Amino acid sequence: MKQEITIVKIGGNVVDDASTLEKVLQEFSQISGPKVLVHGGGKIASDLSVKLGIQPKMVEGRRITDEESLKVVMMAYGGLVNKGIVAQLQAMGCNALGLTGADANIIPAHKRNSGEIDYGYVGDFNIEDIDTARLQFLINGELTPVFCALTHDQQGSMLNTNADTLASGLAISLAKHYHPKLVYCFEKQGVLLDSEDDATLIRELNYLHYQQLKDDGIIHNGMIPKLDNAFAARDKGVKVVIKHALELSKPAGTVLA
Amino acid sequence: MKQEITIVKIGGNVVDDASTLEKVLQEFSQISGPKVLVHGGGKIASDLSVKLGIQPKMVEGRRITDEESLKVVMMAYGGLVNKGIVAQLQAMGCNALGLTGADANIIPAHKRNSGEIDYGYVGDFNIEDIDTARLQFLINGELTPVFCALTHDQQGSMLNTNADTLASGLAISLAKHYHPKLVYCFEKQGVLLDSEDDATLIRELNYLHYQQLKDDGIIHNGMIPKLDNAFAARDKGVKVVIKHALELSKPAGTVLA
Repeated sequence: MKQEITIVKIGGNVVDDASTLEKVLQEFSQISGPKVLVHGGGKIASDLSVKLGIQPKMVEGRRITDEESLKVVMMAYGGLVNKGIVAQLQAMGCNALGLTGADANIIPAHKRNSGEIDYGYVGDFNIEDIDTARLQFLINGELTPVFCALTHDQQGSMLNTNADTLASGLAISLAKHYHPKLVYCFEKQGVLLDSEDDATLIRELNYLHYQQLKDDGIIHNGMIPKLDNAFAARDKGVKVVIKHALELSKPAGTVLA
Repeated sequence: MKQEITIVKIGGNVVDDASTLEKVLQEFSQISGPKVLVHGGGKIASDLSVKLGIQPKMVEGRRITDEESLKVVMMAYGGLVNKGIVAQLQAMGCNALGLTGADANIIPAHKRNSGEIDYGYVGDFNIEDIDTARLQFLINGELTPVFCALTHDQQGSMLNTNADTLASGLAISLAKHYHPKLVYCFEKQGVLLDSEDDATLIRELNYLHYQQLKDDGIIHNGMIPKLDNAFAARDKGVKVVIKHALELSKPAGTVLA
């Protein structure tokens, strides 16, 4: 019988605030059973870029990860944020192992091939390429993988990758060995009809309803890629919840139907 | 019967030069049998400090790792250098796993307790605290650990640690399960009587001879802590070689007798 596994994605706003991050990690450390943490980088990479005088490079309105920007995300996500989280989880008794997709070759990827725009060092991966056996080996060794959103091109370079997509991909691929539960944590109570009003929380959201809310302009901006990733996982049998980071241990948020 | 394991430490000068680093990693990737890489950080951390306007903090002539400097080494060693090496090794067919001492709690440490000077976030560890069973678990999983010189205080903070000491400590602790061979690689041919003349290479060096060369001022500066670490490992039965980074695959350098 397959065991349950919890994949928690924490967003940039959680990572940016030391006190929130500590509370969330405390709750995460207490989740029983196998678990995986995926974190975004928040403003740390942008702040570091500014301090280093690296200008964001845009082509046709899209942000490009050039070589200098790649170094910044490697430092910010792979070093500062990831290792900071690992040290904190260790202090909470959770045997964390910080990973990028390059480590143990768990998430081999390739540079985004978009045809028209060269996004630079941005990585996309095929879910079927994720080495779930390797991940299971680490988890069976009572380790808790902590992923930052970096993958690699298999040719010697790291690649910047979307953290929501990485979390969703890991959850889908882990369904081979486990019953995955994917929890997207952020600074809101879940999917809201009015993004400024927590009382408008949608407790259960199905795909048709989501499409309708998107068409009506009620769900917009950053929530769309997040929900697309969430529904991609839901579609493959993953349980998905979108909730406030400080409600990790509570039955709260928006459940995808 | 115990298997041989090779622990290679590459110094800052190797890490700083992209072309040298690539050649050394190529040779490292071809070492057969279990192996571990330990790398220093080189000038990358100092350069980053300068760019970020962080002044090196000195107390009584000793460098202090304050909170800002700790962030810099976490970014430079744990992020940029470590993940860059992992991506390169993966491209060479070596299944590298980037680690700090906090990851999987392999090297629990504590802040340096020197009595008089507070060195800040500088870590010392007891060799007997290294979790060699965990390390063996990863190595048995056909992974190649790549350590940067960071440990953690078990209270939520990473600590800056000397890379030579870390390599020596790992080699000594791995003697429980393997026959360790420790290779210190740097930009010289080995231990030289005249640091500017490769022809003065000492092919075999014993402890008494080392003490004498130290007393005579022939071996000095940075070589002393390196050799102290090297002899500490030799004393525990570890084979130790000090050689040029580009001679990794050749029977060259100074062997400790």
